[in-house]
Amino acid sequence: MKTIWLDCDPGHDDAMAIILACFHPECHVLGISTVAGNQSVEKTTLNAAAVLAAIGCSDIQLIKGQSRAIMQPLVFCEEIHGQSGLDGPDGKMLFTKGKLPAQTQPGVVLIFEAINRFYKETGQIVDLVCTGSLTNIALMLTLFPEIAPAIRITLMGGAMGIGNTGPVAEFNIENDPEAARIVFESGIPLVMVPLEVTHTVLVTPDILDRIGMQTPFRKKITEMLTFFQSTYKTVFFFDHPPLHDPLAVWYVLKPEAFETRHLHVAIETASPLSKGQTVCDTFGRTGKIPNCHVAVKTDIPLFWDEMLEAVEKADFHS
Amino acid sequence: MKTIWLDCDPGHDDAMAIILACFHPECHVLGISTVAGNQSVEKTTLNAAAVLAAIGCSDIQLIKGQSRAIMQPLVFCEEIHGQSGLDGPDGKMLFTKGKLPAQTQPGVVLIFEAINRFYKETGQIVDLVCTGSLTNIALMLTLFPEIAPAIRITLMGGAMGIGNTGPVAEFNIENDPEAARIVFESGIPLVMVPLEVTHTVLVTPDILDRIGMQTPFRKKITEMLTFFQSTYKTVFFFDHPPLHDPLAVWYVLKPEAFETRHLHVAIETASPLSKGQTVCDTFGRTGKIPNCHVAVKTDIPLFWDEMLEAVEKADFHS
Amino acid sequence: MKTIWLDCDPGHDDAMAIILACFHPECHVLGISTVAGNQSVEKTTLNAAAVLAAIGCSDIQLIKGQSRAIMQPLVFCEEIHGQSGLDGPDGKMLFTKGKLPAQTQPGVVLIFEAINRFYKETGQIVDLVCTGSLTNIALMLTLFPEIAPAIRITLMGGAMGIGNTGPVAEFNIENDPEAARIVFESGIPLVMVPLEVTHTVLVTPDILDRIGMQTPFRKKITEMLTFFQSTYKTVFFFDHPPLHDPLAVWYVLKPEAFETRHLHVAIETASPLSKGQTVCDTFGRTGKIPNCHVAVKTDIPLFWDEMLEAVEKADFHS
Amino acid sequence: MKTIWLDCDPGHDDAMAIILACFHPECHVLGISTVAGNQSVEKTTLNAAAVLAAIGCSDIQLIKGQSRAIMQPLVFCEEIHGQSGLDGPDGKMLFTKGKLPAQTQPGVVLIFEAINRFYKETGQIVDLVCTGSLTNIALMLTLFPEIAPAIRITLMGGAMGIGNTGPVAEFNIENDPEAARIVFESGIPLVMVPLEVTHTVLVTPDILDRIGMQTPFRKKITEMLTFFQSTYKTVFFFDHPPLHDPLAVWYVLKPEAFETRHLHVAIETASPLSKGQTVCDTFGRTGKIPNCHVAVKTDIPLFWDEMLEAVEKADFHS
Repeated sequence: MKTIWLDCDPGHDDAMAIILACFHPECHVLGISTVAGNQSVEKTTLNAAAVLAAIGCSDIQLIKGQSRAIMQPLVFCEEIHGQSGLDGPDGKMLFTKGKLPAQTQPGVVLIFEAINRFYKETGQIVDLVCTGSLTNIALMLTLFPEIAPAIRITLMGGAMGIGNTGPVAEFNIENDPEAARIVFESGIPLVMVPLEVTHTVLVTPDILDRIGMQTPFRKKITEMLTFFQSTYKTVFFFDHPPLHDPLAVWYVLKPEAFETRHLHVAIETASPLSKGQTVCDTFGRTGKIPNCHVAVKTDIPLFWDEMLEAVEKADFHS
Repeated sequence: MKTIWLDCDPGHDDAMAIILACFHPECHVLGISTVAGNQSVEKTTLNAAAVLAAIGCSDIQLIKGQSRAIMQPLVFCEEIHGQSGLDGPDGKMLFTKGKLPAQTQPGVVLIFEAINRFYKETGQIVDLVCTGSLTNIALMLTLFPEIAPAIRITLMGGAMGIGNTGPVAEFNIENDPEAARIVFESGIPLVMVPLEVTHTVLVTPDILDRIGMQTPFRKKITEMLTFFQSTYKTVFFFDHPPLHDPLAVWYVLKPEAFETRHLHVAIETASPLSKGQTVCDTFGRTGKIPNCHVAVKTDIPLFWDEMLEAVEKADFHS
Repeated sequence: MKTIWLDCDPGHDDAMAIILACFHPECHVLGISTVAGNQSVEKTTLNAAAVLAAIGCSDIQLIKGQSRAIMQPLVFCEEIHGQSGLDGPDGKMLFTKGKLPAQTQPGVVLIFEAINRFYKETGQIVDLVCTGSLTNIALMLTLFPEIAPAIRITLMGGAMGIGNTGPVAEFNIENDPEAARIVFESGIPLVMVPLEVTHTVLVTPDILDRIGMQTPFRKKITEMLTFFQSTYKTVFFFDHPPLHDPLAVWYVLKPEAFETRHLHVAIETASPLSKGQTVCDTFGRTGKIPNCHVAVKTDIPLFWDEMLEAVEKADFHS
Repeated sequence: MKTIWLDCDPGHDDAMAIILACFHPECHVLGISTVAGNQSVEKTTLNAAAVLAAIGCSDIQLIKGQSRAIMQPLVFCEEIHGQSGLDGPDGKMLFTKGKLPAQTQPGVVLIFEAINRFYKETGQIVDLVCTGSLTNIALMLTLFPEIAPAIRITLMGGAMGIGNTGPVAEFNIENDPEAARIVFESGIPLVMVPLEVTHTVLVTPDILDRIGMQTPFRKKITEMLTFFQSTYKTVFFFDHPPLHDPLAVWYVLKPEAFETRHLHVAIETASPLSKGQTVCDTFGRTGKIPNCHVAVKTDIPLFWDEMLEAVEKADFHS
């Protein structure tokens, strides 16, 4: 059993990550926080709340995090996730019952307090799973360095080679490279699930068939992934969209299903050509000590089995 | 029939490129020039001369080019090519009859004059094939911009993703990134054969078998590739070494054997993390107009057939 | 009457800034916070506490801030301020009665709360005076952007031309350039008192004469400035040391004593040659809208009159 | 007696540099070359030819150099020097009898040959005086490194602090920073006369009075400097324009009239904020070995005496 804290910016694939986290038998979700990224933090928080409501998990603590990157202007990923950040085929937000959490302190402080309390009470390390920009986490480490022993970090993001929103940069990292650099230089145990892996986990027609449309919930999920498919087709010419974010949750729960390499990964924060690149020293040519386990391969059928099992349970609770 | 000028820094795979260029039935070698890279320009020039002597082609014009990168200190690739730049298993230079060409002007001027004369006389465009750093070519374009209509450039170098001497940089480009940037921004028609392709063309045991050791020349070639295999194993953990450079020659002669993508490729000259990276805009996200045809796949068996045919002819002339 | 919050890293000249702030007739000190810089934040906080104790002002709220820059390793300025950060001629800390404030939250949160409460209660804007790195302030703006209307910022730091710890970078900015960039890009009203001004305000022998050694307190101040003189002589070859930090306090109290220029100031965060430079667009060549009032000249005799008046009062309370 | 080669981009102040070089009693002008900068190389060459014709010095060898920077797009300084590069008050080129030199080789090759021949024949070192971008010189050093012992370089350009065309960059360096870096890293003895000095040598009304308008030539010079005054007033708000370029010539002839500092000077080639900055390590904080004598002060009255004496002789030969 793993205790995770999920920091995300839903987002279609983040929604699937929430479902997997909430219904995987090996997973205890301590809380969920949000960050600006796929859309504004207000929208990603509403989306997270709505997904939680839809799957009967509104009791999970939800915290709204930072509304912008540490040093960069806001850039959203509307071309993939639509105006709400979780659009369906009709251009409207798919799940609608969410509401913003009431909160009088910055999310960063609240995330720290929740994780710290759990760690103090149980002595158990919390697996921070990050499926958006690392803004919240970097600021938590900056303000509360004492949290270090309480956490491990597994993130969806980065690329060993070709990027997505930049030529060699992946969106989550590109959107707050300074935050990423703080995290990658922090010394916290780190796993990165990059595009090289997530681009192998595609929502193919047979997956859509297995999800089906027999219930209102399954219909929503199908619509959600169909919308995702259409934007991925338009923007990246993919026939089937890659389901990035749940892979980071799944790594925590099933690390043995992944092949990884232990590499030094540096974050580019300066070059106009490659800002946000995760520069992976694959052949160990720099002499720098590895700071990150980089996933390079996963067990795709097993992932889908466990992901769809979580969808089934979510459907039951919806 | 193509007329090529080969600019190289032999180097084991450069030697094979020379052999392919000199004995491929579709290839007319106008001349060969050298540059510092795998070793000092004195050594790479001696190596080129020695290979030409060994294969009975000493009548081909050989020009010694620049002895260092435009703006960087010298870095050689001794860990792969040995102290001579063309070491055999006994740690000595494999071919020994070469001598430096007598020359009173900088190579850059002489290369220009040779290509310009040919173009003026025949009206035919020369295919410049570059298998080393682009120092000579960049300086020729800088001093003699009028050469532009007379040339096309095909180069072995760069990477879409993972590099070799740097985390994301390939040796030929990393060794003179400013030269590469001048060439990539020049508007000259450009083909790049990157590591993604050359790392698929491996000197496997069956290839060594086909080369054999029946003649002194074949024995030399086998020793050459065996040495190359051993250093690649040590440095990059490859079981079989990639035969980079002949692929650029072969592209000119057999473009239909390659799959390419037309992309914008920018050269990183500033970032300490990625200097020398060929930043390929694979998904066209930057909006910059493509400036380079990037090879992404080749017909490996056909390459070996034609390469080994050239070895056979070279053996005959040796 | 101005209400100021002093964020500092004492430091010899910071100590004088504290004295000026506490005893200038036009100044109300809402609180003082510290940051790593001239020494570790533990030492700068102890130094601030000790100075406050020495001048009978221990009732002023003192908050310990961040212990390191947002993205850089720690660099102290021991060569100028000694091992304690406030060394005297005997190599020991000059003032000794200070103790660290008890505090259960990060300083950044406490600074926000104090300023916010004051602003909410009085409607008065607080003049934040920064005489160290901008780490605390940048993080406060990042976590609590709602503080913006409550503050103006006046900082000692930066240079239009020649730097001090770097060729073109001044210590306070160089020590946390990312923090500086956050502050300079925040849109908060900003005044910068750069080296060009502070290097004109020198502790000459006549100033030391006016301070004198008639009382234990005056003796301490003389020793403090004498130590400062000796390190400035050794490191920068100055005959008389520049008294940087009080100038930023004084600007808030006596802006009419300064000549300023309204310029765009950008912060260099990337170049290895000039990291931490405050790039001032003196001739308005970039077309960027000015974001900072840069002091270029001050009324030196008047400054000393008011500074020494504050010393006199401090002596009385000591 | 000094033998100089003047590499320039006339330009109003370059024209005065040509006059000073041609008529100073201690100066032998071996030749003059041009480079793109204040205007296109065609225009700067025509301007140089026209000035030489106007002062009866058409026998001096004139060579047209590079038409653009090594790695940057062309930027001219039309706002200061007008459309011809040497405009008079009526918006037309002031001197008109120049014609382009016939030339079959790149200027870089010809400059090398001329200097090399002189050095071989006389054993005397040539003082290269550069008053434009360093493109020609950098390429000469790159193609003909053997020229190193034959030259010393004195250049007008750079700034210790505030720039002119950039916030911290001076035009000649900013216009080809890569060339400047090649020169500053070459190890050739180097003197830089920066804006800090040239901004002290102003064409005040009394200077214009001393030039007068008694002859057609003096009238032209007055018109030339009056035009220069008006553009400097408009662009930089200077009441009297600084006469940059002759100072570099004069340094070679009268080094004892200058105060210099021996510093390490690095050239910024990457930062978008400060590209072209001459980063001077004034306080020796980097530990890098000085590579440049930087002029910080000159004898202004003596300069004008010698400059105006040269104008008088030029008038006599005109």
